[in-house]
Amino acid sequence: MGRSINIYDSTLRDGAQAEGISFSVEDKLKIVRALDDLGVAYIEAGNPGSNPKDLDFFSRVKHVRPLNAKIAAFGSTRRKFAIAADDKNLRSLLSADTAVTTVFGKCWDFHVTDILQTSLDENLNMIRDTVSFLKSWNREVVFDAEHFFDGYKANPDYADACLKAAAEAGADCLALCDTNGGAFPTEIYEITKHAADNFSLPIGIHCHNDGGMAAANSFMAAEAGASQVQGTFTGFGERCGNVSLATVIANLQIKRGYLCVSPEKLRDLTNTARLVNEVANIWPDETAPYVGRSAFVHKGGAHIDAVLKSPGSFEHINPALVGNSRKTLTSEVAGRGAVLAKIQRINPHITKDSPETESIIQRIKELEHEGYQFEAAEGALELIIRKQLGKYRPLFELINFRIIGEQPYVTGRSAMAMIKINVEGKTEITAAEGDGPVNALDKALRKALEVFYPQIANVRLTDYKVRVMDGKSATASRVRVLIESTDGAENWSTVGVSTDIIEASWIALVDSVEYKLIRDIENRFRAYL
Amino acid sequence: MGRSINIYDSTLRDGAQAEGISFSVEDKLKIVRALDDLGVAYIEAGNPGSNPKDLDFFSRVKHVRPLNAKIAAFGSTRRKFAIAADDKNLRSLLSADTAVTTVFGKCWDFHVTDILQTSLDENLNMIRDTVSFLKSWNREVVFDAEHFFDGYKANPDYADACLKAAAEAGADCLALCDTNGGAFPTEIYEITKHAADNFSLPIGIHCHNDGGMAAANSFMAAEAGASQVQGTFTGFGERCGNVSLATVIANLQIKRGYLCVSPEKLRDLTNTARLVNEVANIWPDETAPYVGRSAFVHKGGAHIDAVLKSPGSFEHINPALVGNSRKTLTSEVAGRGAVLAKIQRINPHITKDSPETESIIQRIKELEHEGYQFEAAEGALELIIRKQLGKYRPLFELINFRIIGEQPYVTGRSAMAMIKINVEGKTEITAAEGDGPVNALDKALRKALEVFYPQIANVRLTDYKVRVMDGKSATASRVRVLIESTDGAENWSTVGVSTDIIEASWIALVDSVEYKLIRDIENRFRAYL
Repeated sequence: MGRSINIYDSTLRDGAQAEGISFSVEDKLKIVRALDDLGVAYIEAGNPGSNPKDLDFFSRVKHVRPLNAKIAAFGSTRRKFAIAADDKNLRSLLSADTAVTTVFGKCWDFHVTDILQTSLDENLNMIRDTVSFLKSWNREVVFDAEHFFDGYKANPDYADACLKAAAEAGADCLALCDTNGGAFPTEIYEITKHAADNFSLPIGIHCHNDGGMAAANSFMAAEAGASQVQGTFTGFGERCGNVSLATVIANLQIKRGYLCVSPEKLRDLTNTARLVNEVANIWPDETAPYVGRSAFVHKGGAHIDAVLKSPGSFEHINPALVGNSRKTLTSEVAGRGAVLAKIQRINPHITKDSPETESIIQRIKELEHEGYQFEAAEGALELIIRKQLGKYRPLFELINFRIIGEQPYVTGRSAMAMIKINVEGKTEITAAEGDGPVNALDKALRKALEVFYPQIANVRLTDYKVRVMDGKSATASRVRVLIESTDGAENWSTVGVSTDIIEASWIALVDSVEYKLIRDIENRFRAYL
Repeated sequence: MGRSINIYDSTLRDGAQAEGISFSVEDKLKIVRALDDLGVAYIEAGNPGSNPKDLDFFSRVKHVRPLNAKIAAFGSTRRKFAIAADDKNLRSLLSADTAVTTVFGKCWDFHVTDILQTSLDENLNMIRDTVSFLKSWNREVVFDAEHFFDGYKANPDYADACLKAAAEAGADCLALCDTNGGAFPTEIYEITKHAADNFSLPIGIHCHNDGGMAAANSFMAAEAGASQVQGTFTGFGERCGNVSLATVIANLQIKRGYLCVSPEKLRDLTNTARLVNEVANIWPDETAPYVGRSAFVHKGGAHIDAVLKSPGSFEHINPALVGNSRKTLTSEVAGRGAVLAKIQRINPHITKDSPETESIIQRIKELEHEGYQFEAAEGALELIIRKQLGKYRPLFELINFRIIGEQPYVTGRSAMAMIKINVEGKTEITAAEGDGPVNALDKALRKALEVFYPQIANVRLTDYKVRVMDGKSATASRVRVLIESTDGAENWSTVGVSTDIIEASWIALVDSVEYKLIRDIENRFRAYL
């Protein structure tokens, strides 16, 4: 295994600059856990100076669990002619209380004179003061050399002077940024090599994709000596996006022998990418290298025949290396192996060749075809497996529900739901009101079920996501509803799909409460099972 | 202007290998016209041997109009041990009656022995015979050297022998293919340079994007001497796609001085890309370099301010060069300048210091605080500005609506909506049913409004997106609904936020129809305004 590369992920900061992306604190914590599980070295998680809400995240992330990744807060150099210790942004950066702070500074003379509107010398002072100040507070400091490549092409001496100012002030890493994203691989190689030859500090690379060459540019920088690659996991970012770290990791580690994450974690690349897209509520790029759903799909007949003879004939790598799969052979959710592991948790005697395994995979494929997705809905997947194995009986029966929503409304709540259910011959009819039809239905269902199953009172929904799957038929589009629930001890996710958002929500709500009730039965009677 | 590059587009052949793409003959003719208008040199339009329907296209394309682009038919070398003149595929290729035929032949020894299952010598005979035969019929012949880079890495002498066989048989161009798409820019450069140095024929390059480096690889091949670049216009293709020619043309011509299309045609790149996506019925990649809708979108406040001072500060090219445009997203961090430009479209006399500007920005901030987001909702933003400027009066009044949803349902539709509205003293009460409550309400609202404003019949919703903003209160979370509408001539977006998805949808629906009605009034009475 060759040289180590530090993977520096900025999905939560530079990725949040992309159109249509806005993360809640909960979203951010989920992504932090996933990136940490994968083994990235740095997670740049916010800009506390420009977004005060990020401070809430930084105080909560400390209590998540012990993380292997270092959390970085991001901000700019001090304001011109300010005292670093008095600078509001720098004070916010410190109050984020992270191991690492990353500060960006101007390196392109035109930006200093025309955008910052200060002198070239004052910009060098800003870099120097900022880095020294943060070092005096014992932070690991990454200096993001903004527009380094454009700056170097315009005025190489000044661009170098900016790096020198950061280095002399004690920066721990100099990250060269192709901020406008238009540099060519040959330029990236030469200029990165120049920096790596001239500074004894670790060199980082930060590429944007405006010329469609960010992945190649990141590779060329690594070849030229960069030891840190910055990007966003699935390529989110302003304009055409940042480089996708999933692509970088696979290119460098699988094909060029660099060490980016521990080798057994490569298999998590695809699931991590899907989780990041799902949490961001962004349609994944199906053609994304390595991790896209189409990345190993074969359509041409000759190609399919050849791949069946020898997969390497039309695949640049074995998709299993990155946890992806060839589409014609396995379900989208995962290989047969992944599903089998879940089946065996319910019935350990079933093997991959059992007819039950086949029937479960068929059922999953059918549901996926309808728009279900189980990567983020393990609770739902368990119920499907139970149903196919006969290890399930419904714990209640819906007789009917009716929802009324109206505007204007006088009751303080915009919707009411009436519900009638049957549990072992006894019926319960009740009603509840709520903010909107789904909330009213959720409350009415719980209220009715609590009569029979008091433990339902402990269940809380912690997340509710809606994804419209085909915008073309607009308000009659198919929607996928993802619900996350907790009873304080365990968390689980369920999913429903329908053209009617209420029906989709109902499916996910029912699975959520059934999952809880089945778990309770298991726990109470474990000794007898 | 530097060296000429022949642009060879295979959207209609290799692009049709992508998942979800299937072109009718009419579709193909439309794309041929658009690519010819742009000035690509070659259009590879089908594989008559594997798809007999393509022959219909080839007979019709001759009558379209005089084309500047050369049309190419695509097929494989003759079958092993066949006589070229008797080979069914080659006969189909001839009957396509095109100026150019492109034939692919194996160049990777493993593919010859394991996939084709013949001898290395017979494969050379197949290449030689096929090219000679097509030359004897006076065709311009492009030899696509399949898997050339993988083949060269495995057995350079044999890969070279394949090129030599094609060259000696009279091929007009040797196109080197990275068929599996996993090659690195450094390899592409060295191997292409080797071929360009060893053969006096024009060299082509054909890259796939499995490593995310197709654009960089195509550039490196041009630098190494390739004079033809093959790809698909917007990057359609099997697995991760082919290289996007829109990206290649912009990279090479704008930044490196190569001549790919006539300079004034560069401005058509964006429209051509949108047309190709539209005809293929594929959601465009918004972040596509140069031609994507987000390619020149700015969200961060500091970036917006800088771009307003000097666009080159955060744009690698002027978007007008490729017919794209700058968009500044209005968001919590966005500056005043972006909003002002929109205000001045409605009232050009307002300046950044006018009290109206302050009050509009305050209102936007309040709404953003409630969860509104205007970056993708320009229509909604215009209505807010109009309301603050007094350039608005409501075009109808809601008296009330009531929605009923139920399970199980017997009417075929799960929801019904009743609505009563008032327009200038006249009331209209009506009802509609739909798939879910929002669809029913949407239909009922339009039905009521059409009585007063018949032009509403032309409005269609083209997209409907739901984002749950804070999962913590789950089904009572605040949701943001984004609606995109069109009347065939113009598209606009509106947004609504509420804890009730029906109310959020209602706000966005009302803004959508009001925007349309206001536009119509403006257009009719422009002379008086």
